[in-house]
Amino acid sequence: MYLGIDLGGTNIAVGLVDNECHIIKKDSVPTGRKRPFEEIMRDMANLCRKVMAEAGAKDEDIKSIGVGSPGTPDVLKKEIIFASSMPTFRNAPIEKELWKHLPNVPVYVENDANAAAYGEVIAGAAAEYSDAVVVTLGTGIGGGIILNKKIYAGFNHAGSEIGHKVIVLDGIECECGRHGCWEMYASASALIRQTAEAAKKHPESIINEIIGNNKENIDGKTAFDAARCGDETAKKVVKRYIEYLGTGIVDIVNVLQPEAIVIGGGISKEGDNLLNPLNEYVNNFGYGINVAKPKIIIAKLGNDAGIIGAAMLCQQI
Amino acid sequence: MYLGIDLGGTNIAVGLVDNECHIIKKDSVPTGRKRPFEEIMRDMANLCRKVMAEAGAKDEDIKSIGVGSPGTPDVLKKEIIFASSMPTFRNAPIEKELWKHLPNVPVYVENDANAAAYGEVIAGAAAEYSDAVVVTLGTGIGGGIILNKKIYAGFNHAGSEIGHKVIVLDGIECECGRHGCWEMYASASALIRQTAEAAKKHPESIINEIIGNNKENIDGKTAFDAARCGDETAKKVVKRYIEYLGTGIVDIVNVLQPEAIVIGGGISKEGDNLLNPLNEYVNNFGYGINVAKPKIIIAKLGNDAGIIGAAMLCQQI
Repeated sequence: MYLGIDLGGTNIAVGLVDNECHIIKKDSVPTGRKRPFEEIMRDMANLCRKVMAEAGAKDEDIKSIGVGSPGTPDVLKKEIIFASSMPTFRNAPIEKELWKHLPNVPVYVENDANAAAYGEVIAGAAAEYSDAVVVTLGTGIGGGIILNKKIYAGFNHAGSEIGHKVIVLDGIECECGRHGCWEMYASASALIRQTAEAAKKHPESIINEIIGNNKENIDGKTAFDAARCGDETAKKVVKRYIEYLGTGIVDIVNVLQPEAIVIGGGISKEGDNLLNPLNEYVNNFGYGINVAKPKIIIAKLGNDAGIIGAAMLCQQI
Repeated sequence: MYLGIDLGGTNIAVGLVDNECHIIKKDSVPTGRKRPFEEIMRDMANLCRKVMAEAGAKDEDIKSIGVGSPGTPDVLKKEIIFASSMPTFRNAPIEKELWKHLPNVPVYVENDANAAAYGEVIAGAAAEYSDAVVVTLGTGIGGGIILNKKIYAGFNHAGSEIGHKVIVLDGIECECGRHGCWEMYASASALIRQTAEAAKKHPESIINEIIGNNKENIDGKTAFDAARCGDETAKKVVKRYIEYLGTGIVDIVNVLQPEAIVIGGGISKEGDNLLNPLNEYVNNFGYGINVAKPKIIIAKLGNDAGIIGAAMLCQQI
């Protein structure tokens, strides 16, 4: 059995995973992300022990522990070099610290988005493909590039930051320091902002009714819901959002031509309402004549992707 | 010895290449790109024979022939599926046709930009790197992605079209059907257009003097030359061009993080005048803190890259 850990800014999730990539047992605790690195790691190790105990697993049953963490990993040193959301993770020795509590179990360290993408490709929506790019629409846009069933992240393991490619030169300022990054237009947060702006500008729009005139109630589903009611304002928001999303997807198609592009995050629950216009966009604008196009599919594992992907990092080597 | 063929819309270039990637002998003939496929291939084969004869090489000395051609190859079938600049190349059986003239020599078929990128990585500017992205600034922007010393082009071998990722949403229309593609802003043609526009708008600019008031004389060097003379208009053109170029380069950095990015094409002759501001831009805007940055370097082999890369395609297998 394998332990897979999905470390997030909010929660630490731990899962015990079997050889068939099934989660036998899982649990989570709050991260308390600003606490000292050692405290966070201690809680992580304690949660591993708890999950193991509940499943009746002994130390010798655990073949490896995989940790998906925010930030840039040093996969050889088993460290996190830097993570903007985890202020105490600076050249943070994950393996060394875990070994204080769970000695000598092989440890693998990976970026959390990469681990989740890996999960989708080995056991989720893209299980039948060797190469895939996973695009997760959340606060930002997370990305993972899997080539030949292995994580690709460049020579410094800091790559696959697909949310931080510019689609609008001199556009909206991004936290990364650039202007016009894709995630400023096509993330779930961006869609929420676009929906709020449209609702304010069009008091007659059904959007305002759906949200009880409280913009705090807007989520990634609101514009799609209002569009389904026939609301013209919402239809325009959705149409433009598909253009923003499609622009970045076609960029991925033209440069990487992966077998599959997997869309994850809350907005992906729209299913065909999202896929159909997106496929149309990609077919219209993707480069290449007379060649097969990548399949665009919806992620399957949700939050479990990070746990399963982390647990199975040992299989990459 | 190996035969490497760089098939272009203007010329067919053939080179005889030794084990150390040196060109022993090379020659070229006009392509006549609109002629029947069989005629073009016959001329290509005849040129191979001529180069071989001049170098005293016999049939049994030739280990393989590699063909870098415009368009999308089927590397297994040794065909070109489609090439917009070669109207008679439609599922064109390169190997079959070459074998009519040069029987049974192993044939490899590749996209011309990929073959040239491969040449730079095995024998040129990026010889010391395993992974590199080659960016060629010409009429458009050609790209080649080399990972672990092999050409990466996606599952359908149509990838690495880096010139066709959008940096200006709803921007200038591109031949590919999209608007705002990188090559519409950062190719040599784009710089020439930007220089012409600035010269027209600023009659006092030295640019007009340099080109003898004839915009036909503008090339990719003009703005750099005028900027070196202290011309403010030209300085602004160059500064903005670096922003256009840097935007796409940073996109490549953030997504792929290759060890090296190789800049080719006429503009790359500016050397440090191009590299210094470009490196500054990438250092300012590239994603990732405390991680190594890709090296940006100038291509070395010029037009020979395509011949050498094509000749050595056999080494990829």
